[in-house]
Amino acid sequence: MKEVLKSGPDPARLERDLETLASFRDPSRPGFTRRAFSPWYEQGRSWVDQQMSSAGLDVRVDAVGNVIGRRPGKRALPAVMLGSHVDTVDGGGRFDGMVGVLGAIELARCLEESNTALDHPLEVVSFFAEEPTDFGVSAVGSRAMAGALDDHLLQQKDPGGQTLAEALGRSGYDPARVPVARRDPGEIAVYLELHIEQGPHLERMGKPVGVVRVITGFRRHRFIWSGRPDHAGTIPMGLRRDALAGACESLLDIESRCRKGAETPVVGTVGKIAVWPNAVNVVPDRVEFISDIRSPSAEKLELVCETNAKEARSIAMRRGLGVEVAQITAEAPIQVPDFIRREAAAAVRGLGLEPVELVSMAGHDANQLARIVPVGMIFVRCKDGRSHCPEEESSIEDIALGVAALLSLVTRLDQKMRN
Amino acid sequence: MKEVLKSGPDPARLERDLETLASFRDPSRPGFTRRAFSPWYEQGRSWVDQQMSSAGLDVRVDAVGNVIGRRPGKRALPAVMLGSHVDTVDGGGRFDGMVGVLGAIELARCLEESNTALDHPLEVVSFFAEEPTDFGVSAVGSRAMAGALDDHLLQQKDPGGQTLAEALGRSGYDPARVPVARRDPGEIAVYLELHIEQGPHLERMGKPVGVVRVITGFRRHRFIWSGRPDHAGTIPMGLRRDALAGACESLLDIESRCRKGAETPVVGTVGKIAVWPNAVNVVPDRVEFISDIRSPSAEKLELVCETNAKEARSIAMRRGLGVEVAQITAEAPIQVPDFIRREAAAAVRGLGLEPVELVSMAGHDANQLARIVPVGMIFVRCKDGRSHCPEEESSIEDIALGVAALLSLVTRLDQKMRN
Repeated sequence: MKEVLKSGPDPARLERDLETLASFRDPSRPGFTRRAFSPWYEQGRSWVDQQMSSAGLDVRVDAVGNVIGRRPGKRALPAVMLGSHVDTVDGGGRFDGMVGVLGAIELARCLEESNTALDHPLEVVSFFAEEPTDFGVSAVGSRAMAGALDDHLLQQKDPGGQTLAEALGRSGYDPARVPVARRDPGEIAVYLELHIEQGPHLERMGKPVGVVRVITGFRRHRFIWSGRPDHAGTIPMGLRRDALAGACESLLDIESRCRKGAETPVVGTVGKIAVWPNAVNVVPDRVEFISDIRSPSAEKLELVCETNAKEARSIAMRRGLGVEVAQITAEAPIQVPDFIRREAAAAVRGLGLEPVELVSMAGHDANQLARIVPVGMIFVRCKDGRSHCPEEESSIEDIALGVAALLSLVTRLDQKMRN
Repeated sequence: MKEVLKSGPDPARLERDLETLASFRDPSRPGFTRRAFSPWYEQGRSWVDQQMSSAGLDVRVDAVGNVIGRRPGKRALPAVMLGSHVDTVDGGGRFDGMVGVLGAIELARCLEESNTALDHPLEVVSFFAEEPTDFGVSAVGSRAMAGALDDHLLQQKDPGGQTLAEALGRSGYDPARVPVARRDPGEIAVYLELHIEQGPHLERMGKPVGVVRVITGFRRHRFIWSGRPDHAGTIPMGLRRDALAGACESLLDIESRCRKGAETPVVGTVGKIAVWPNAVNVVPDRVEFISDIRSPSAEKLELVCETNAKEARSIAMRRGLGVEVAQITAEAPIQVPDFIRREAAAAVRGLGLEPVELVSMAGHDANQLARIVPVGMIFVRCKDGRSHCPEEESSIEDIALGVAALLSLVTRLDQKMRN
């Protein structure tokens, strides 16, 4: 341990890396846009590949474009895997995902520079396409590694009609070889991810880093409202069957229910909506919206979603509308195992900080890896809880502390898990 | 009068005409779609032109595509003008507009067949593009005739970037000659329009026809809501600035205010809305919607629109949002002059029916003509108040009664106005 800490993470080097990676961006889009499948993403990924090699890692790109750098262990044990992603949302920032990949590379450099050999092999992964793609599929790379990128997902289409499978093919990956990217659970001892919090809690508590206790579950439902397309002038208010007014009432009902969930956090968002015929002088007869409900409590998630649907049906009944509610995604909450939380807390304490536990309200590559192996996450404080926007910001000092905590957690787990 | 009524409107002939006109339709669209600027519209217009000629009218097409059939009067007086339109909304029906044009042609045939010469010249007009065009401009032809198709309107663009002026040019009308379509108020004594009610009142009262007392005023406002685009998971409910939730609250506020306006009718519709970034996992940071508020009372219209804007600002304040409310259209209510209402009531009574007065909650070509001459309207009962949809329906008996009432009104006004 002492030997490792002597060569701790170098904030100046981390900062340079973050700046360089941010320079690979689509200049026609706002912020620091580097969408998977774009030339800017390919440039960034190829630079990451070089950084991994320079850090002494053995680099390969798997069947779906995950970049994997491996450092051998002293013993024939499954790997300790670290990772995150370097793609962004459209108009995104410089930290979401990048901190985890560059932090893990910096960690590998620290091991190299201090000649520290772990018992377990170490793998550093830059996962392909973590952010929602134009095909409506997110976490493409980590999903494939967990064996969950099935044919149904590969056949999803972008607005231009191209399938995810076709897009992978055009990027040089044979979609028939997707199953080759799958890893056997016996090959991986634990998956750890360093990430910015993307929320306001660490900043409010005045803590630079935190330990994730549970990753939120989430459910998405499509609500399809149907009414009657009437003339906006001639139909009296009492005779209308306005699908948009019904949808608005339901949206506010969902918001109000989630606002009440302060003790066990629950958040609900309707971010996507479409209206037909969407004409200024016609009462809308069809509305579709998608609700995104998240909670670390499976029971709460179930109850909130059921009540949202029940209330929607009651609003529809009262207004003479039709409504169909269909679940389109359901992910259960993921508990971080006690032994990981305990060692992470000790790692934070070893840096002279008081450990705090957090709920992750966002999905990460860790969600996918949790399908096959134990996972843990360390969060770094960020400014105003902002993320998925150009204003996304974490200080380099906080990021370096996050890398130091991850390094300490890795060496602790390396020792605890060797038998 | 007696002589005229001997050759009253022929329901079978009217029905054939309505059927023939309905056959000129875009087969790729639902209902009976005949959009202005389309080949199906051109076919329909050319057929209308022939029907006018066969009815003994002298036909010309003016500088913006209005088809005008003229029958000379016995004296050098301004014309009695009858008209409506034969274009439809996308997915529209077979009666809105068509009843007024074909009814006026049938009326001209009745005069011809009974060798009735009026003192006033008679003009029958099929107005160009009454329904909202892709350029956001409605009543193109009647607006030009009233001198209100100004440069600002001619420069409005369709979603493909083409201006209304360019579209007129492509249809063979020189946009520089738009002012030539303008009529001098001294040339027209009165404008009368027969139209389906597009509302439920006549059907509820069990009356086949009604007399319009006032044509609704209307105002349209653009509401632009701005919030903050946050991650749908990580931002707690209490910290959100959700532009869509604020917009929904405002929309329901507008609906609720208009529902209370039963004694002095007021209707309000939000039919068009756009949301940014419209992504399932991002809190919406921008929403635009357009409100369409109508009332026959100018005071009520003003008050409702002012309160809508005031409440929107209060909702925005409470939610930490921005909102801008900008008026984009304002049309004052149009009173039908007493002498027209009186003669129309007498005409209805002459058919053995009890006259009833109505408010027109829709805009018509009559709204434009009212800028320069007195206008009157006769409404025909329609089924379930439905309009702007394929299910739009009026019985041929009711339509024939409407034409008979219009014929009687024309001959009455011809006598009353000759001095």
